[in-house]
Amino acid sequence: MNQIFLTESLLKILSPEQVLSDEFDLKFYSYDSSFQAKLNRYFPDAVVFPRSTEEVAAVMRLAYEHGIPVTPRGAGTGETCGCLAVEGGLVMDLSTWDTIEEVDTANMQVFVRPGVVHANLNNHLASYGLFFPPDPGSSRMCTVGGMVANNSSGLRAVKYGTTEQYILGLEVVLPNGEVVITGGQKSRAIKNVSGLNLTKLFVGSEGILGIVTKIRLRVWPKPKSRGLAMAVFDNLEQAPQSVLDVYQGGILPSGIEILDDSAIKAINMYKPEINLPNAEAILLFEVDGNPAGVEWEGQQIKEIVSRRAVSVEWATEPNRINSLWQGRSVVATAAARVRPDGSRIFAGEDISVPLNRVTECLRRIKELAAQHGIAVVNYGHIGDGNVHTAPVINMDNQAEVEQVQKLTDAIHRLAVELGGATTGEHGVGAVRSRYAPAEHGRALNVMRMIKSVLDPKGIMNPGKLLPPEGDDSQC
Amino acid sequence: MNQIFLTESLLKILSPEQVLSDEFDLKFYSYDSSFQAKLNRYFPDAVVFPRSTEEVAAVMRLAYEHGIPVTPRGAGTGETCGCLAVEGGLVMDLSTWDTIEEVDTANMQVFVRPGVVHANLNNHLASYGLFFPPDPGSSRMCTVGGMVANNSSGLRAVKYGTTEQYILGLEVVLPNGEVVITGGQKSRAIKNVSGLNLTKLFVGSEGILGIVTKIRLRVWPKPKSRGLAMAVFDNLEQAPQSVLDVYQGGILPSGIEILDDSAIKAINMYKPEINLPNAEAILLFEVDGNPAGVEWEGQQIKEIVSRRAVSVEWATEPNRINSLWQGRSVVATAAARVRPDGSRIFAGEDISVPLNRVTECLRRIKELAAQHGIAVVNYGHIGDGNVHTAPVINMDNQAEVEQVQKLTDAIHRLAVELGGATTGEHGVGAVRSRYAPAEHGRALNVMRMIKSVLDPKGIMNPGKLLPPEGDDSQC
Repeated sequence: MNQIFLTESLLKILSPEQVLSDEFDLKFYSYDSSFQAKLNRYFPDAVVFPRSTEEVAAVMRLAYEHGIPVTPRGAGTGETCGCLAVEGGLVMDLSTWDTIEEVDTANMQVFVRPGVVHANLNNHLASYGLFFPPDPGSSRMCTVGGMVANNSSGLRAVKYGTTEQYILGLEVVLPNGEVVITGGQKSRAIKNVSGLNLTKLFVGSEGILGIVTKIRLRVWPKPKSRGLAMAVFDNLEQAPQSVLDVYQGGILPSGIEILDDSAIKAINMYKPEINLPNAEAILLFEVDGNPAGVEWEGQQIKEIVSRRAVSVEWATEPNRINSLWQGRSVVATAAARVRPDGSRIFAGEDISVPLNRVTECLRRIKELAAQHGIAVVNYGHIGDGNVHTAPVINMDNQAEVEQVQKLTDAIHRLAVELGGATTGEHGVGAVRSRYAPAEHGRALNVMRMIKSVLDPKGIMNPGKLLPPEGDDSQC
Repeated sequence: MNQIFLTESLLKILSPEQVLSDEFDLKFYSYDSSFQAKLNRYFPDAVVFPRSTEEVAAVMRLAYEHGIPVTPRGAGTGETCGCLAVEGGLVMDLSTWDTIEEVDTANMQVFVRPGVVHANLNNHLASYGLFFPPDPGSSRMCTVGGMVANNSSGLRAVKYGTTEQYILGLEVVLPNGEVVITGGQKSRAIKNVSGLNLTKLFVGSEGILGIVTKIRLRVWPKPKSRGLAMAVFDNLEQAPQSVLDVYQGGILPSGIEILDDSAIKAINMYKPEINLPNAEAILLFEVDGNPAGVEWEGQQIKEIVSRRAVSVEWATEPNRINSLWQGRSVVATAAARVRPDGSRIFAGEDISVPLNRVTECLRRIKELAAQHGIAVVNYGHIGDGNVHTAPVINMDNQAEVEQVQKLTDAIHRLAVELGGATTGEHGVGAVRSRYAPAEHGRALNVMRMIKSVLDPKGIMNPGKLLPPEGDDSQC
């Protein structure tokens, strides 16, 4: 279908302000936050902004009839090209469909459309004393629909798990335009084991099985108190060991973050007033709950972690918490400043390894970075083994651009070698599907069978999550 | 395939003590704990006891080649005929394959074979200070494999969720005998968003997609303290309202149980020394965590619940907790004693309704019971709306047997009408699939598509979870 006919067909379904096809407009849809999208731009043939389930279904029926690829998009904060039309066709921008339809406090659940921004949802829920626990770093921009597509999480996954844990049901438009509701078509039940668990299959499916148009989310009482322990380690090995000590002490913090020496250096260079101690690692243990319980756990953590750390500070006073947290909160920005001409890129940025391999992982990433002549800054959610590596390069230096691709490939392979995953929370998209054979082996066939039966024409977000057939020997 | 040839073929794969085909032996596999299995016996053609993945795969290849139905079975504690060969063929008894292969404390996970009994696993984990939180009532008998198949839970689901939340990966033998590993073929990562979430699709699939042969489970630090509040209500309406008050007070107990007046009466009749107060409802709030936090939440609960309850007692002393818990712990047994000739049956026993419909649900179940002339006892996990109804009948009275079937049908329909689910934790099996069209609407087609692509010959646990095609108008 040529672009003119496509636009005309779309205008029979949608109003003019819901369709973009001008090249200038399309440019804004040709990239996301990934490094890959800095190397290649992926222009869609058109962008649509449906604002009802019926409009999404009508667009899908058109796409299905003519075999047009459709790529759903939230805020475009992803780092995997997940929302880019890598095979052309339509981008479906759901970010403007941002209605919080209902907060059902009596049933501890909320109904939202996919474009609701995460932070806006939690601000809204706060007035009811409720919250939706997953907390991606992009909270102020990313959409709940994008979080569902990628099964997002963040700092607090240690205690609160990932997005999937809170999804009670979904309204999904299938590739052929049919609308289904998972988790019970009229259900407001919290507990439900009736039928195959389609809800959890769609969560994290990155838009390759259908378009999520409505989300039924479980929400929780917002904890009343919070505390933070900062621990400084002379020796990197002691940091993951301290994490294990805390778990074995019967304590499950809401988050455990690590900054290694590369991150400490970057932060001190970026904001010298933060003045983090020079050390091989800093750990931050966040605890939340009721005031008495938080204080008790803080004291326990302090005692347990002191055995291995050079120093431990425990704080419950909000200003002091913010000040201890400051280094961690600026690290993503600070990373880019480790060299004056540097850009921080997002590639190989999200591997997840077993807890007992974190030290080895961090040391080997540094070795690999040195071998490839690339500066990296390492931080991440050590409590669940999710390591964030930030390579910093000069984007105008072609040799560095090539080297960093080799480096990030090696980091992904390292994750698999260490018994980990190439992505802990950011997703696969177009940039990590090549590792699927090594990660999943024959289970990849099962994924392909499910994809092929739900999307027989292969129009839903093609080129994402699953590698092309026959590509299985790559890894 | 006739039974003799089947047995001979099985004996080429398994040793003689791994195959049963004598009618006397098969009888023990003709029933589970369901009412349905009291009305009809379902004899398999043979029972096999594989004890390796290779043996399971070899049996599946044989079954696939000859189109023989295969029904996996754990301890047979289910209440849905889920483990019965309702269409004949093989029962695969996995209960003797009960190895805890590894407790990986450093990575907070454990690898088990499907036959491990839940309580045995938790006893074993306790020595490491760890636990697997879901807690079905049948803990001392049921297998972890059965829990995965049914996505089981229990009292503590309010805080800890259901089995699926703890499953990091599965080894699954597909209907054609192929072996796949979900969640990363060599992964010990805790966090992993790579690929479609096959793990969660298989959890709760009741054996209709494949046989689970190995389970990688996340475990948690065992909480150090526990407390229990018992609250007595003159008026049933006030009980669910108190649950909501507690949630809105920012507290998430580990469990919240209800006994209505029918349950209170049954308990006092069965064990007069328990001497529960005569009331419309009793609630039990269980709190766990660290000692200071538990005490804080207990005092809060006491204060909050006192606004609506006649009395509230809060206890942290283990003997007193056990004594307060005693009524709840005997209710399942007590139910049968409401009449001298009574048997408690398991049918319509596990509906789940929105929290704000619990009162209406309990009142209407009583009305329905009265209309059908059947005694019922109601209790359950009110914190997540999961209502357990125990009908008590004289099994020799054919009129009662017929009436109770009408009653339980009405209870299932009531669940759907109230925006709930026909099963909160026990599963669908052969007894609740008829409600799938009403519960799931067109999502049922998606379930069928997945079933048909993974099990094209329809040999995996046929007659379970999904209703026969064309049956969709029944509800």
